[in-house]
Amino acid sequence: MRLAADASSLQCVVSQIGGGSILDAGIHTRGSLRAGISLARLCMAEQAEILIAPCNAADLASNNAVFVCTDEPLKACMAAQYAGWPVQTDHYFAMGSGPMRAARGREETLLELNLVESADVVVGVLESDKLPDDEVVAMIADQCSVAAKQVRLAVAPSSSIAGSVQVVARAIETAMHKLHELKFDVTQIVSATGHAPLPPPAKPGDTVTGIGRTNDAILYGATVSLWVDCDDDAVEAVAAQVPSHTSADYGQPFAETFKQYNYDFYKVDPMLFSPAVVTFHNLHSGRTWNHGKIAADVLRQSFSS
Amino acid sequence: MRLAADASSLQCVVSQIGGGSILDAGIHTRGSLRAGISLARLCMAEQAEILIAPCNAADLASNNAVFVCTDEPLKACMAAQYAGWPVQTDHYFAMGSGPMRAARGREETLLELNLVESADVVVGVLESDKLPDDEVVAMIADQCSVAAKQVRLAVAPSSSIAGSVQVVARAIETAMHKLHELKFDVTQIVSATGHAPLPPPAKPGDTVTGIGRTNDAILYGATVSLWVDCDDDAVEAVAAQVPSHTSADYGQPFAETFKQYNYDFYKVDPMLFSPAVVTFHNLHSGRTWNHGKIAADVLRQSFSS
Amino acid sequence: MRLAADASSLQCVVSQIGGGSILDAGIHTRGSLRAGISLARLCMAEQAEILIAPCNAADLASNNAVFVCTDEPLKACMAAQYAGWPVQTDHYFAMGSGPMRAARGREETLLELNLVESADVVVGVLESDKLPDDEVVAMIADQCSVAAKQVRLAVAPSSSIAGSVQVVARAIETAMHKLHELKFDVTQIVSATGHAPLPPPAKPGDTVTGIGRTNDAILYGATVSLWVDCDDDAVEAVAAQVPSHTSADYGQPFAETFKQYNYDFYKVDPMLFSPAVVTFHNLHSGRTWNHGKIAADVLRQSFSS
Repeated sequence: MRLAADASSLQCVVSQIGGGSILDAGIHTRGSLRAGISLARLCMAEQAEILIAPCNAADLASNNAVFVCTDEPLKACMAAQYAGWPVQTDHYFAMGSGPMRAARGREETLLELNLVESADVVVGVLESDKLPDDEVVAMIADQCSVAAKQVRLAVAPSSSIAGSVQVVARAIETAMHKLHELKFDVTQIVSATGHAPLPPPAKPGDTVTGIGRTNDAILYGATVSLWVDCDDDAVEAVAAQVPSHTSADYGQPFAETFKQYNYDFYKVDPMLFSPAVVTFHNLHSGRTWNHGKIAADVLRQSFSS
Repeated sequence: MRLAADASSLQCVVSQIGGGSILDAGIHTRGSLRAGISLARLCMAEQAEILIAPCNAADLASNNAVFVCTDEPLKACMAAQYAGWPVQTDHYFAMGSGPMRAARGREETLLELNLVESADVVVGVLESDKLPDDEVVAMIADQCSVAAKQVRLAVAPSSSIAGSVQVVARAIETAMHKLHELKFDVTQIVSATGHAPLPPPAKPGDTVTGIGRTNDAILYGATVSLWVDCDDDAVEAVAAQVPSHTSADYGQPFAETFKQYNYDFYKVDPMLFSPAVVTFHNLHSGRTWNHGKIAADVLRQSFSS
Repeated sequence: MRLAADASSLQCVVSQIGGGSILDAGIHTRGSLRAGISLARLCMAEQAEILIAPCNAADLASNNAVFVCTDEPLKACMAAQYAGWPVQTDHYFAMGSGPMRAARGREETLLELNLVESADVVVGVLESDKLPDDEVVAMIADQCSVAAKQVRLAVAPSSSIAGSVQVVARAIETAMHKLHELKFDVTQIVSATGHAPLPPPAKPGDTVTGIGRTNDAILYGATVSLWVDCDDDAVEAVAAQVPSHTSADYGQPFAETFKQYNYDFYKVDPMLFSPAVVTFHNLHSGRTWNHGKIAADVLRQSFSS
């Protein structure tokens, strides 16, 4: 993890926990925008280019957007970035993402897509407001079949600066994951770009608002382009369903929806988690599909809540 | 050509043909957005910075734009990027561009502008849906006065991902070429920026749509800024004529115009090939000229055709 | 100063004056956009990322914006970029900025903020249309307590290409300086982004227009986001006052205001010098404040004057 050498300039700190190297990017450190970019790159197995760019606040309720571009969407998003590992012990919980998931190889999606891959060193990102302890590192090492000293983790809460950048870099990933749920063969996605507004970080410890704003940046503010290579019918069958607005849970800030369901993620319509706008370009046919819309009013409500 | 080492990560393949090194960026490979950026850089003799950035789909009918910035517009665009070499044998045709043109030194424009320059290794980009054969490589080597093993070519069709990026990176070049035709002294152009929407790639083999969409991205969607150093009169004499809308062939998707002229390029008004909007900043006087307009409706029509 | 090695590709020249190394980025050289970016980075002690990006001319009266992002706003802006050193001898005057100011350590603001720091080599940027002479270099060396050969300066007029980029990279800095004047503790600013339109360079020697347009790019066109970590009351006390429109001197191109005051900077309301729009994100509370507005009409008037 090259991050370690740069930790200080990123306003982060690296420490050894249970033998592994842990980068604190926003728990006992202030973190930074650049740390967020670095976390997002790690999380995507360094298979994407990510930048912060100015955007129009009238459209996106923020002065800044996070832009992501990848020519390896399967490796970057499905094998690595998707937060599919709930890293949990009796004393700890974090959403786990990054290339370590492929080394663990236990998620159904990874098995289905043949994305399991052993590794000498495993890299992961934990979304949490607590650093992992020895037991967590040992469990990760064990499940990934590496020694604890081969575990490299970066940790930031969704309410931190770095966390806010890292989470809204997930626009493409949410589109791909929903497509996989809709039975579209995501190995046919060749290249992708996406951008979403950078939301204001929530108050430290206010996880619901942190999760709410970063989700809203995607659900109501993200635009994703997917270059695919497949039959038009395969796109036609799913394209209109991919944007978030097709979900019954669409329309209000995510924190409110979350509250209505008593903060039980599993009660939220899984079809909600996708970008506001999704465009498909089919290389096979030259056709384009464009669906969805930005909801600046919901973004404004969420970001000022 | 540093591309070769990166070929695999760019979803490209390098092979030896007739002794030269040929990068396939979209014929028997899928290519990538990053390969397109690399081709565009090669094509501009590495004298420009090029990036894909998010743009407003309501304005430009695409979620992404290709942005180019150069402080060596003469070397980058006139000596290298302009597709002024029809690379033709009995069995092959491609539009040839890149710094190899200066080593060949046969085009009138290069001679007029004193841009001929011998080279030890020649680099070129071919827009074609076929890889060149031994005979083509031998001809290029011969015309550039180098050995075949000193020829480095990158090839992509305009309908590929990489090709679509590479072609719409030509906004500045089209402005400069039209200015040269209008007898403006292009050596007075000091720096330039340009951006154009990234169009959807056409169906493989559908060259007319591929050429149509990439041209439309420039003609109806490109904005170019030129910093010049000359008398105001020299700018005044040409500024209003530079944008595409001054051409009688302006107004419909290029593929339709092309069809009307029975696919004979030489019948199309050469004054059509220029950006939608062109801004001049004269360093000599501090004055600015701004002409032209974006035509989002034609872009939408073209990109969904 | 790594610039020296790149000087030629930046259309600049390095010469030795009085033992120091002086980069001419727009006096006897034409300079370049990239030289402007390099000057801005030097000026911010290499603690910021700076890029030129396309922008909407209808909103910002320019096709290009300069975007700045820093996670070290105190070091980058207050300790380095602020043009707080009027470099003056009997024969010379320039606005001096860059990290050399911290080595000199005489400005009240630097002392108040504890930003004085000795250095082995000092780097500075001079805004001037004349190169410094031996006496100027000797004075800078003396005041910074280094040998003359340890002085590295880059010089560009505000009317040059490089100067126009360098000055409009100051959006964040003007916000921070005004906040400091308003008694806000600027050490609480954790990260910042800002962008402003790139204005057309003024006619060489027309310093008033050069200063006017570059100031207008900030006053009427800049948007700044500040991530702060402090009590809400501290933000509430100042947020609404930060944007330029709260000044009595707001509303017309700066060159006109300057003229009204007989070109005496000290008569201009110091509260004018700040971005058009300023957004605060408080990490402590999760709250956001957004104040100010872009004035495209004034930008258009200024840039076409």
